[in-house]
Amino acid sequence: MKYVEFTELGNPADVLVLKDAPETSLSSGQVRVKVLAAPIHPASLLQIAGQYGTIPDLPEIPGSEGIGRVSEVAEGVGQLKVGQRVMLAGGSTWQEEIVGPADQFVPLPDVGDTEQLSMLTVNPLTALLILSSFVELNEGDWIVQSAANSAVGEYIIQLAKQRGIRTVNIVRREGLADKLKALGADVVLVDGPDLEERIGDAIDGAQVAMAIDCVGGDVFVSMVESLSFGATIVSYGALSKQPPSLPLISVIFNDVRVRGFWLSKWFETASPEDKQAAFGQVINLVARGDIAAEIDSRFPLEEIKAAVTRAAESGRDGKVLIVPNPA
Amino acid sequence: MKYVEFTELGNPADVLVLKDAPETSLSSGQVRVKVLAAPIHPASLLQIAGQYGTIPDLPEIPGSEGIGRVSEVAEGVGQLKVGQRVMLAGGSTWQEEIVGPADQFVPLPDVGDTEQLSMLTVNPLTALLILSSFVELNEGDWIVQSAANSAVGEYIIQLAKQRGIRTVNIVRREGLADKLKALGADVVLVDGPDLEERIGDAIDGAQVAMAIDCVGGDVFVSMVESLSFGATIVSYGALSKQPPSLPLISVIFNDVRVRGFWLSKWFETASPEDKQAAFGQVINLVARGDIAAEIDSRFPLEEIKAAVTRAAESGRDGKVLIVPNPA
Repeated sequence: MKYVEFTELGNPADVLVLKDAPETSLSSGQVRVKVLAAPIHPASLLQIAGQYGTIPDLPEIPGSEGIGRVSEVAEGVGQLKVGQRVMLAGGSTWQEEIVGPADQFVPLPDVGDTEQLSMLTVNPLTALLILSSFVELNEGDWIVQSAANSAVGEYIIQLAKQRGIRTVNIVRREGLADKLKALGADVVLVDGPDLEERIGDAIDGAQVAMAIDCVGGDVFVSMVESLSFGATIVSYGALSKQPPSLPLISVIFNDVRVRGFWLSKWFETASPEDKQAAFGQVINLVARGDIAAEIDSRFPLEEIKAAVTRAAESGRDGKVLIVPNPA
Repeated sequence: MKYVEFTELGNPADVLVLKDAPETSLSSGQVRVKVLAAPIHPASLLQIAGQYGTIPDLPEIPGSEGIGRVSEVAEGVGQLKVGQRVMLAGGSTWQEEIVGPADQFVPLPDVGDTEQLSMLTVNPLTALLILSSFVELNEGDWIVQSAANSAVGEYIIQLAKQRGIRTVNIVRREGLADKLKALGADVVLVDGPDLEERIGDAIDGAQVAMAIDCVGGDVFVSMVESLSFGATIVSYGALSKQPPSLPLISVIFNDVRVRGFWLSKWFETASPEDKQAAFGQVINLVARGDIAAEIDSRFPLEEIKAAVTRAAESGRDGKVLIVPNPA
């Protein structure tokens, strides 16, 4: 039973190692789940590097989510059968198989793309919650977001389009407009000088009700300055590692509000009802193919160093997946 | 009838000029009010310099508030008598007298210090609204504020003390602790290195529910980093003219919220009931002497250049008042 582990914090390509352990046998009520696919998220890389909100207890098997297929069922398990696809939301997904009590695995519908369903609990949920938790957005409203070609960015474009919300999408390089417009983007702009003016021109001076940022630095500032009175900017990441020079003029005179979003905290604090509702929405949207993320590449567990190296590269389009048990 | 005016934007001591005009006679329903005292607020100086949220129509008579005494009443005025003290909330108070319809002047109670009552509608109202509009503060809660020896800062100390809210007060120089503690401050710290740690030490690691800032720059950042999960920082000024390098770590992982407060907007948008309630509270607090601001110096209209120069000096303690008609 192969798995990936790190025993010290550091650069993921340096500290991650592939290990092997004998298969454990099942106890009553447990199931064995073969991991089919698990994405590499920036948050996982930051956690391995010790640069995230929480420091892991070492040694740790990384991986925040994934999809698996039940391969063995112990006595006393009623709800899961061999062959059932399940959501892996308990972490430590970068391994060949996971053994645990049956009720920790949420069964997934028979329809829907396996790889897309491997990425339910982080990015689509983040996109959905950010769009619905801070500002009451109405059809026709404009929002602006940075890193629009990230996975969350693309989910936001798709979700917004479905609700008639219009999006200004900031990216860091040319050549992405066609792809993002095909997903439903209304405006695509490349980050650079005069961004605030270019946002205003592109939407003909319309009001911007909300900004969504995972970059920080100058693009955060330009988005703050493009917001209309009383609007909110939601920060869910700081990819540039640059703190924004917050324009207090906008905060004081234009009542711009700054909020943060951290999915882990939502998991800790949301009520079971809210969680079930949010998961239900996301599972249906992804299973029906209404929202999807682009996939850049797939790596077996043995190539974990190449996988995390690729995931950390800029200019990549789409997610890097680990596929311990390819279909 | 002497008055102060500016016809171009610029350094207040350069652009303000003293003028004289013949007294106007009253029309029906009007009253003549002699201005007794009017404060010089930083916002007025910024407005004269063209550095505020709104640009004045020139020429303009500055002054945002003050107190006057009715000296003449035309026919048709029932509610005001000669000798009545009134609040001047309509602006343009840096002049010898104001003539206008009787119903634009709010009568003040017979009790209460005239100079303290000249400063009702800006600083005490700001302090009251900031303390009550953003975070539900309970007895025993800690808040932290910068520029604690400003007028708003001192009102906040007094109002917080009355409600059992504990305050950490940041100032820019030594020698203010005794004065602020006499007003009710719990902790007084001088801005400088390791401010965040010193805040934590001073309150023994207690939670900080709210920060109030009118400085910006590094002190804003230190206060953000001292806040507890889900707390709010309210910005109502940027005296340092330095934008803070917003720590997104605190925004994302600690759910710190950034809000702005601008009194002019509150005047525009608050309901008449809310305004009456807020004014009623403030008039009573000041008239009873429950809250007061320190007064640095008093200048007649003729010394307007010396007055604004003094008001712009750092290291000053208290407000500079213009007293067109000394008692």
